[in-house]
Amino acid sequence: MRMVDLIVKKRAGEALTREEIQWFIERFSTGNMPDYQVSALMMAIYFQKMTMDETVALVEAMIESGDQIDLSGLPGKKVDKHSTGGVGDKTTLILIPMVAACGAPVAKLSGRGLGHTGGTLDKLESFEGFRVELTLEEIIENVQQYGLAIGSQTQNLVPADKKLYALRDVTGTVENVSLIAGSIMSKKVASGAEGIVLDVKCGSGAFMKTLEAAKELGQKMVDIGTRMGRETVAIVSDMEQPLGNTVGNALEVKEALDSLRGNGPADLMELCYALGEQMLILSGLAANTSDARRQLEAVIANGKALAKMRDLVAAQGGDPVWVDHPEHLPSASHSIELTAPSGGFVQDLAAQVVGESSMLLGAGRETKSSTIDLGAGIVLHKKRGDAVQAGESLAILYANAPEKLVEAAARLGEAYSISPEALQGEFPLIHARITSSKQ
Amino acid sequence: MRMVDLIVKKRAGEALTREEIQWFIERFSTGNMPDYQVSALMMAIYFQKMTMDETVALVEAMIESGDQIDLSGLPGKKVDKHSTGGVGDKTTLILIPMVAACGAPVAKLSGRGLGHTGGTLDKLESFEGFRVELTLEEIIENVQQYGLAIGSQTQNLVPADKKLYALRDVTGTVENVSLIAGSIMSKKVASGAEGIVLDVKCGSGAFMKTLEAAKELGQKMVDIGTRMGRETVAIVSDMEQPLGNTVGNALEVKEALDSLRGNGPADLMELCYALGEQMLILSGLAANTSDARRQLEAVIANGKALAKMRDLVAAQGGDPVWVDHPEHLPSASHSIELTAPSGGFVQDLAAQVVGESSMLLGAGRETKSSTIDLGAGIVLHKKRGDAVQAGESLAILYANAPEKLVEAAARLGEAYSISPEALQGEFPLIHARITSSKQ
Repeated sequence: MRMVDLIVKKRAGEALTREEIQWFIERFSTGNMPDYQVSALMMAIYFQKMTMDETVALVEAMIESGDQIDLSGLPGKKVDKHSTGGVGDKTTLILIPMVAACGAPVAKLSGRGLGHTGGTLDKLESFEGFRVELTLEEIIENVQQYGLAIGSQTQNLVPADKKLYALRDVTGTVENVSLIAGSIMSKKVASGAEGIVLDVKCGSGAFMKTLEAAKELGQKMVDIGTRMGRETVAIVSDMEQPLGNTVGNALEVKEALDSLRGNGPADLMELCYALGEQMLILSGLAANTSDARRQLEAVIANGKALAKMRDLVAAQGGDPVWVDHPEHLPSASHSIELTAPSGGFVQDLAAQVVGESSMLLGAGRETKSSTIDLGAGIVLHKKRGDAVQAGESLAILYANAPEKLVEAAARLGEAYSISPEALQGEFPLIHARITSSKQ
Repeated sequence: MRMVDLIVKKRAGEALTREEIQWFIERFSTGNMPDYQVSALMMAIYFQKMTMDETVALVEAMIESGDQIDLSGLPGKKVDKHSTGGVGDKTTLILIPMVAACGAPVAKLSGRGLGHTGGTLDKLESFEGFRVELTLEEIIENVQQYGLAIGSQTQNLVPADKKLYALRDVTGTVENVSLIAGSIMSKKVASGAEGIVLDVKCGSGAFMKTLEAAKELGQKMVDIGTRMGRETVAIVSDMEQPLGNTVGNALEVKEALDSLRGNGPADLMELCYALGEQMLILSGLAANTSDARRQLEAVIANGKALAKMRDLVAAQGGDPVWVDHPEHLPSASHSIELTAPSGGFVQDLAAQVVGESSMLLGAGRETKSSTIDLGAGIVLHKKRGDAVQAGESLAILYANAPEKLVEAAARLGEAYSISPEALQGEFPLIHARITSSKQ
């Protein structure tokens, strides 16, 4: 087999065979295939697409490049959740304790933030001493004992994907829906869950800018999961504006704790319930969405979800007292208020621009090696549709390094679009629910 | 400037600027641009094409990567000729002495054979002692003294093209007409000629299989040459069957010497006259094709073209006596005759298959490092349209290593297609003449 023949075949629009895909991924992941041939193939795939058979073969080959997590020792049907990434998205911090409190065991592997979107691991490290680098044994032990664990992706889970993504990132070959879906699903499947709930973000602050693109990605991921024997469901949710009222690590943790106490903002809770419903159904603990919803509301009302959060923090090295005393969490020494230059109604609050403002404050990473200020971030007082008076507070920005506050506030000001007319139209948070296309 | 932005821009179908092209070629040729980014860009170019502005910028940037030959010290208007490569194509060996005998100085840089097509340098080395590795000074001195020189492309002429082609070759990105045309024309322009005549081969034995593709390549090359201030003309000539009656190095030299003596086969002479006419017109020595034709026929008839061949051989280290005594040229110790299995008319004599048969005999190179048997090759007795009796000789195959004779004869048999009906239709040798599209 010669790689150049595979490239020419794909270039001509033909489908590669399972054997051909296994062959080049195996060689690539072991350092026996030049990057320049793989990047040329990726560009040919960008233009000629991949069939579902090819995509599944790619996912399987990538999974075989590393370790797989075996959760079969854990009781019950294991469910996992993945978000494609948004601004102010602290859903995992609420959702995982909620479903665990309902009896669904969750071993969740999360990532760190990059660019204008945040990462669950960074947020959890707001709890002093919180350990995200768990061994596989620790994850299983914690899930057995407490019903939940949130760890970092271990080094050797789907190494081929890591290597391939790094190459695609610098060769203009990221934007192919099969490659994106395959990259995500390879990690989800290798993580061992039997049921997978996907949160596909859609809008200006998301990777997928249009509903059409988000639906296509969601369908592709659901179909891959289904083909690989995982029950998979996707929710397409709005990311035109940030989720909830906070952006920034410790600020988002505080909002998550408020939410677990029953005081969460409406949009954030709506998404947590929508995702939680699907997780409980997939885990076999709920018959339908209204049944699931009742259970989820109950664990918020009776404090069991908050108790699971204490378990999680304690089990991974943090102080559970902080869950009830969030004033211990990192905070910022400086702040600035952004006020409305004119009265009217908020027409738009561009999520990506809010994320960029937050990054200027030090709450996000520009590159993988950037350090982050856990206390930095933004508390939003006005969101899309809200009425506002001239001079009224739109948001407060926090940082420990004051030098970027003014610039960040100016950037945040650009995110707001205010005009005299009340906002027209509907702006649903949940755009679609996607199940297997039963091919 | 970031290479990934250039890749994404081209991927979207936009044209790169002259500065962007210069930037990446300069970095690539100096080893400061990763191959994996360049190959991804090449694949994006395959799908999205290049404008003429981009192509000219690429050619200029590639030329700047190395040395350029300055022929301005030579008298007269210098003309060059290039063929895209065919089977049995010994045109250069006849054409260059002819036009030099007419008074047009020619400093020709040629290549070696690879695959099923032969190379002029290999053929010339059939003359014992013939030196093709000339310095630039030697080339200029020989042209001044004798009016002609044929040398090998020096190492540092358009090194960026050499590097880029090697990468394209293994990444499935060869087949783009702008890149092919740019690669050829960069070398022609760097070689210093003021007028360029291109022989674009077309048909089963050529790189361009269809007339349409050959015309497109020819037009692209002519337009590049014109944009770069070179008078450029292309002839599209047939390569469905081999040119002339011999394939293989010393055999082709013998046929070329016969042709210079006035005994050339009709198709071979037709092409030599067609190309020679254009060269004399570009050099300013002829007013039109009929004037040029008269001059070219004269130097064949009066022996001046043959005398130039003697000059060429003597000047580059060979024995000019061999020109008149071709029995000194390398020959083969073994031969086999291919006879017609049935009578009828030759419908087709597939050039590429003839080339492959010749390669089996040892006359061609499978890889760049293969050694060749100068005496090996094929003498064709029947070509397209010829009547043949069952058992009559179709060809004789020659080799010094007898073990492949039978296999080569079988392969050559596959090249012949014979059927009872006389061949219908017209099969012109010259398909088109292409001049600047005056954009």
